[in-house]
Amino acid sequence: MFSPFFVELIQQLVQVKNPYLDTMEEDILYHFNLGTKTHNLPEMFGDIKFVCVGGSANRMKAFAQFIHQELKLSGNPEEISDICEGTDRYCMYKVGPVLSISHGMGVPSISIMLHELIKLLHHAQCHDVVLFRLGTSGGVGLAPGTVVVTEKAVDYSFRPQFEQVVLGKVITRSTELDEGVAHELLQCSSELQNIPTVIGNTMCTHDFYEGQGRLDGALCSFSHEEKLEYLRKAYDAGVRNIEMESTVFAAMCRVCGLKAAVVCVALLNRFDGDQITSPHDVLVEYQQRPQALVSHFIKKRLGLVV
Amino acid sequence: MFSPFFVELIQQLVQVKNPYLDTMEEDILYHFNLGTKTHNLPEMFGDIKFVCVGGSANRMKAFAQFIHQELKLSGNPEEISDICEGTDRYCMYKVGPVLSISHGMGVPSISIMLHELIKLLHHAQCHDVVLFRLGTSGGVGLAPGTVVVTEKAVDYSFRPQFEQVVLGKVITRSTELDEGVAHELLQCSSELQNIPTVIGNTMCTHDFYEGQGRLDGALCSFSHEEKLEYLRKAYDAGVRNIEMESTVFAAMCRVCGLKAAVVCVALLNRFDGDQITSPHDVLVEYQQRPQALVSHFIKKRLGLVV
Repeated sequence: MFSPFFVELIQQLVQVKNPYLDTMEEDILYHFNLGTKTHNLPEMFGDIKFVCVGGSANRMKAFAQFIHQELKLSGNPEEISDICEGTDRYCMYKVGPVLSISHGMGVPSISIMLHELIKLLHHAQCHDVVLFRLGTSGGVGLAPGTVVVTEKAVDYSFRPQFEQVVLGKVITRSTELDEGVAHELLQCSSELQNIPTVIGNTMCTHDFYEGQGRLDGALCSFSHEEKLEYLRKAYDAGVRNIEMESTVFAAMCRVCGLKAAVVCVALLNRFDGDQITSPHDVLVEYQQRPQALVSHFIKKRLGLVV
Repeated sequence: MFSPFFVELIQQLVQVKNPYLDTMEEDILYHFNLGTKTHNLPEMFGDIKFVCVGGSANRMKAFAQFIHQELKLSGNPEEISDICEGTDRYCMYKVGPVLSISHGMGVPSISIMLHELIKLLHHAQCHDVVLFRLGTSGGVGLAPGTVVVTEKAVDYSFRPQFEQVVLGKVITRSTELDEGVAHELLQCSSELQNIPTVIGNTMCTHDFYEGQGRLDGALCSFSHEEKLEYLRKAYDAGVRNIEMESTVFAAMCRVCGLKAAVVCVALLNRFDGDQITSPHDVLVEYQQRPQALVSHFIKKRLGLVV
């Protein structure tokens, strides 16, 4: 018989849902340029407790340097090195128990990264890991700079589901996120200055222009009034921001038993326009807000702040 | 009355399909970090005749340096600079009449780039432009290293169409590519050494693992035999390779009257496996094949080779 402690540990291990994986002699994580034969993954990654992912490579490097300072780790944060430097598909930085990874833009790009990340955490025998997506988004009825912690990730019809094609057939997966982590993040925001935060639904689209009702793409077949009507419907369904990765992120984390949260800042209020016109320094400050919020969460979990 | 020459010129101009665009005081191409007020787009880009796009930033830089040498242009190809250096979403290099741009992975990522590229070509008053996607792919019944010039880009059900969500409604666009350009490319391959090339259908999926029937993802709910059956069906429908961007590339180019081709090398034969195990130098040589083919096409069009 196993001890309750052991059973709990097993439950908290990162679970892959693929019976073939453990029969493979070698697993090459192609888009990370890592592999089970070429790298000692348990030694490199076994102590990871927090994984933070975001679209932009520069931003995720900046986050790694920021969390290095926040956790008061030894060494020079400027000298941090990209674990995936042999490839330009993604970048990856490890800072103590925190992994910071870029995922590019859109569901397919983040989905490749998540498959290889979940396999990495499995091969490294990580347990009790929390994942965060830190991103930018368009706000729906929110002041620019507001941070949205996602309650449900919803599709273009405001349904909390993700459609995945498997061998030519469409299957549907739930996109519910961890309620506890979301409320812990909201509590964190109340302890910080200047990080206005709400909990709301996040709509995930497959493009930035027509799918989000923008009037400024190369293609636009609808009127200003039709755009506003769609945004109003979204608002009435609880949508507070729009981005391009949350549904697959929520769905894959859920299937693999990983606690996860989506924390995106709204760069503009889509009821007021489509183009992102704020000055560069304002946008930079907005993009730091999800980072500051998640950093506070991590420090509290590690007992570095009360 | 307009002269036939003038009418033809207008027809060859890059067309946006958005009545709002020319009424905007300023158009910020956010993900390129370019704009109509901050940059003189006709002066910067007016002479562009060939646009080559591909997923990887490093590869598209290498292509720009390669085409610089091939066209025997003055200046040091090593000193080529990224026009989008203010952002890390995409990179962009201009080499004479050739523009080389990275687009990341997946339909959403390339679609953002294409909206902003087509607007850029429109603002710059470019005409008579040909677009190429140069990529990597999984081969279906082909030897690794074979180049596939796409006849039709097809979806997971092998249909030559792309589904686009517009304000919550799904519309369908044709993904037919330019037959003339495809056959000109096949002719080019016959004039070069060591670039085995076929014309075939290209299946575009929204992920790399479950959607392409790989047994090595974090999630896998099907058997080896079911995978092979799906690949056999794809082969019977004329599919010779699988990648992740071709349908939206074909659809958007077609709507905007741009001649376009998809040229991808197969890195492996999916009937034989899922993992990309070839040595690094072999993969690098494979990835140069679409570049060499398109370079030859460009040189022929420019009259630099007979």
